[in-house]
Amino acid sequence: MRMPDIIAKKRDGERLSESEIRWFIDGYTKDSIPDYQVSALLMAIYFQGMTQEEASVLTRAMAESGEQLDLSSIEGIKVDKHSTGGVGDKTTLILAPLVAALGIPVAKMSGRGLGHTGGTIDKLEAFTGFQTEISQKKFIELVNTHKLALAGQSGNLTPADKKLYSLRDVTATVNSTPLIASSVMSKKIAAGADAIVLDVKAGSGAFMSTVEEAAELAESMVGIGKSLNRRTMALITNMDQPLGRMIGNTLEVKESLDVLRGEGPEDIYELSVLLAAHMAVLGGKVTEPEEGRRLIEDAIRSGAALEKMREFIGNQGGDPTMVDRPDLLKEAEYKIEVKATSTGYVRKMETELIGRAAMWLGAGRSTKTDTIDHSVGIELKKKVGEKVEMGEPLAVLHSNTLQPTEAKKLVEEAYSLTGQPVEKPELVHGTIY
Amino acid sequence: MRMPDIIAKKRDGERLSESEIRWFIDGYTKDSIPDYQVSALLMAIYFQGMTQEEASVLTRAMAESGEQLDLSSIEGIKVDKHSTGGVGDKTTLILAPLVAALGIPVAKMSGRGLGHTGGTIDKLEAFTGFQTEISQKKFIELVNTHKLALAGQSGNLTPADKKLYSLRDVTATVNSTPLIASSVMSKKIAAGADAIVLDVKAGSGAFMSTVEEAAELAESMVGIGKSLNRRTMALITNMDQPLGRMIGNTLEVKESLDVLRGEGPEDIYELSVLLAAHMAVLGGKVTEPEEGRRLIEDAIRSGAALEKMREFIGNQGGDPTMVDRPDLLKEAEYKIEVKATSTGYVRKMETELIGRAAMWLGAGRSTKTDTIDHSVGIELKKKVGEKVEMGEPLAVLHSNTLQPTEAKKLVEEAYSLTGQPVEKPELVHGTIY
Repeated sequence: MRMPDIIAKKRDGERLSESEIRWFIDGYTKDSIPDYQVSALLMAIYFQGMTQEEASVLTRAMAESGEQLDLSSIEGIKVDKHSTGGVGDKTTLILAPLVAALGIPVAKMSGRGLGHTGGTIDKLEAFTGFQTEISQKKFIELVNTHKLALAGQSGNLTPADKKLYSLRDVTATVNSTPLIASSVMSKKIAAGADAIVLDVKAGSGAFMSTVEEAAELAESMVGIGKSLNRRTMALITNMDQPLGRMIGNTLEVKESLDVLRGEGPEDIYELSVLLAAHMAVLGGKVTEPEEGRRLIEDAIRSGAALEKMREFIGNQGGDPTMVDRPDLLKEAEYKIEVKATSTGYVRKMETELIGRAAMWLGAGRSTKTDTIDHSVGIELKKKVGEKVEMGEPLAVLHSNTLQPTEAKKLVEEAYSLTGQPVEKPELVHGTIY
Repeated sequence: MRMPDIIAKKRDGERLSESEIRWFIDGYTKDSIPDYQVSALLMAIYFQGMTQEEASVLTRAMAESGEQLDLSSIEGIKVDKHSTGGVGDKTTLILAPLVAALGIPVAKMSGRGLGHTGGTIDKLEAFTGFQTEISQKKFIELVNTHKLALAGQSGNLTPADKKLYSLRDVTATVNSTPLIASSVMSKKIAAGADAIVLDVKAGSGAFMSTVEEAAELAESMVGIGKSLNRRTMALITNMDQPLGRMIGNTLEVKESLDVLRGEGPEDIYELSVLLAAHMAVLGGKVTEPEEGRRLIEDAIRSGAALEKMREFIGNQGGDPTMVDRPDLLKEAEYKIEVKATSTGYVRKMETELIGRAAMWLGAGRSTKTDTIDHSVGIELKKKVGEKVEMGEPLAVLHSNTLQPTEAKKLVEEAYSLTGQPVEKPELVHGTIY
């Protein structure tokens, strides 16, 4: 096979065969195919797309390009969850104990990642002593005994995806549905998921700004999952405003604990319960999401979810007393209010700007070597549809800088008020099986 | 400026600004922009195209990326000619003395190149002693005194185009009209052309297989030339069969001498006269092509064209007596006939296959380091529309191999016969000013 022929084939809108896709991924992983041919192919894929079958083959080839986690010694169906990312999304923190409390095994690999806030591991490190560097043996033992463990990504998982993603990032080929879908799904499959619940975000703070784009991506991912014999479903959810009221690492941990206690903002509570209910279905615990929801809400009300969280933190070296004493979590030095300059209703929020403000405060990383500040972030006092009086705070910045000028400006810009009452936005746009 | 932004802009169908194009060509020439970003941009250009203005800016940026020939000390308008390449095209060999005989300066840079036969320099080396490695001083002196000199490409002309072309070749991005047009025109402009006559081929032996594609390319090149203040025009000519009857280096020299004597096959004679007439117009010698044609045919009839050829060969160290004694040119060892297996009319010829047969015999180069055999080639006894009896030769292979099995098979495959009379094809499809 010759790479120029494969590029030309895709350029001309033809389907690539399984052997062509496997040959290309294999050669790229081994560095025998140069970046400049791969970037030309990626751009051709950007324009010509891929069929469901091509995307499935690509996913499998990437999943098999490096090590694959063998979770077969864990009893039960391992259900993983993936969110396409958004501002204030702390569902992984909530779902892990919630689903494990139902007896469904949660064997979660997580990363630190780049973004407006840290990754799940960064957030969990708010609990003093919490460790994610655990051996595979211990990881499997914890899941079998306690149904829950979370480890940092180690080993050489999906090296092809890592190389491709780095290349896409600098060649303007990130935004292609089959490439995004195969990247996400290859990681889930290499990490040993038997079933996958996807939360695909649409809106001003998401990768996909319209519901149509999000639905296209969701369908592609669900199609890939099914063709690779993984039960897969997706919710398409609203990211036109941040999820919950807390953005930042420690702040999100606090809000997550609120949800596990049956408190916390309605949207994050509702989305967590809904995702957990679908995970219960895919995990074979129940047959209908409604049934799953009842079990999940029982686990919250009975305290079983919160107890699972204590057990989880303790098992991995963290201080479980902090679960009940969130006041022990480190707070930022200054709390600076961003006040409304008029009276009215919040009409919309530029979620992306809120994310950038959190980043400015130090909650996230723009490069892998950046350090994050766990204590900083933003607390939203008002969200879309809520009434605000002139001078009332819209948000509170948790800052370690006395004058976080730029963050304040970004948050001010993010809010639009109107004199007319505004309806609260829908949380879920659709469900794709 | 950031390369990913430039790629994204073109990917989304926007126009690139002059400063963006110049920045990219400059950075690529200096190796500060990597191949993998350039290949992604090339593929985006493949899909989204370029406006006339973008292509002109790209052409100028590539022309200025390295050395540029300064021909200002040569009196008169320097008219260059470019053909997009085809099988049996020896017009450069004929046009140089023909146009120079009219007193129009011909300061020709030529290459060896890859292809079914060698380049113009390879062909001229059939004349014992002929030299193309001459100093720039000598080159200019010869043109001022004798109106004609031909030199091998030296110096660092259009390095950006060389890098881009190599990259396009391995990333399936060769076949893009603005990229082809800017590549050709940048070389002509760097080589000092004041005016340019283009011969754009269409057909089974050409880069552009349809007249529509060829016309699009011709319009793009003429547009670029004009916008850069070079008088430019293009003929769109037929390459559904080889030009003339001779393919191969020495064989083409012989046929060129025939044309300069007023003999030779009708198509190559006619095309040479037509191109020369247009060069006479662009060179300011005449105002109408018809007037140019009369002068050109006078130069052939009077022997002035042939005399210019003798002078040219002699000036550059070659043996001018060979101009009148083509029998002294080296011949191949074997002449093998390819005979018709039925009686009929030649309906069509797969020109590409004839080219491959010449290549097989050793007339061309597939890599830069290949050596060519000057003496081998193919003599076409029959062309489209001509009648042939069963057993009569269609072509004669001039071979240094006793059994050129593969070449014979290719030539046999190239010919299609029919029982019905066939019209001779048009030579010129159109003219673009």
